[in-house]
Amino acid sequence: MHKSRLGTLVIDCHSEDLDADTGFWARVFGCEVERRDKPGDDAYRALATPDSDPKLLVQRVSHASRVHLDIETDDIEAEVQRLEKLGAVRLERVRGWWVMQATSGHRFCVVNPQRPDFEDHANRWS
Amino acid sequence: MHKSRLGTLVIDCHSEDLDADTGFWARVFGCEVERRDKPGDDAYRALATPDSDPKLLVQRVSHASRVHLDIETDDIEAEVQRLEKLGAVRLERVRGWWVMQATSGHRFCVVNPQRPDFEDHANRWS
Repeated sequence: MHKSRLGTLVIDCHSEDLDADTGFWARVFGCEVERRDKPGDDAYRALATPDSDPKLLVQRVSHASRVHLDIETDDIEAEVQRLEKLGAVRLERVRGWWVMQATSGHRFCVVNPQRPDFEDHANRWS
Repeated sequence: MHKSRLGTLVIDCHSEDLDADTGFWARVFGCEVERRDKPGDDAYRALATPDSDPKLLVQRVSHASRVHLDIETDDIEAEVQRLEKLGAVRLERVRGWWVMQATSGHRFCVVNPQRPDFEDHANRWS
């Protein structure tokens, strides 16, 4: 048995000023910008959403601006295999997570749990 | 004073089989597909998410597949003007809502309230 659900909306920005774009989205949604002090996180800014909401992440990318979805799970390999059976395709492993492509053409990621209430509210798959 | 917040994630599908693509996303998120019997709604399928979550809508589009965000508000004109002050631009009025473009290049919509707990949990702007 493993669990998964929608974890994060990632606002991919083809941006020369990530802080300006993050500020725009923070004001749109009335959120504070969380500090990201971890090494390697310079391409990311997190917005402080309520604990029960999906996370909102702003990311600097080299491709065109878009929005992608992250699916959070307590077993990445089991979740990727479940999604493959639905027709999704593995594209690339990045650090610990997988980038996949949906049957509808959308790219999305399968990542570790992000939201604090994951344990209680994720879908259970057996 | 008016209110707004993130209302809906719209999964835009460049699709020849909208029901198949809707089925894929419904199984990804463990949701039922809601019936859409209203005239003019043949391009849309709603997924039955918990009341406290953003809505998930699958839409047939003629452009490339992508995800866009809908902002729900009790005063569309006031919200559009607020967003214009942040740098967003009006693109097109469609029926009752507005399509806008963010400073980061993303297109999004400003629509009527969609989620049942809008009144209690939306941001208040004065």
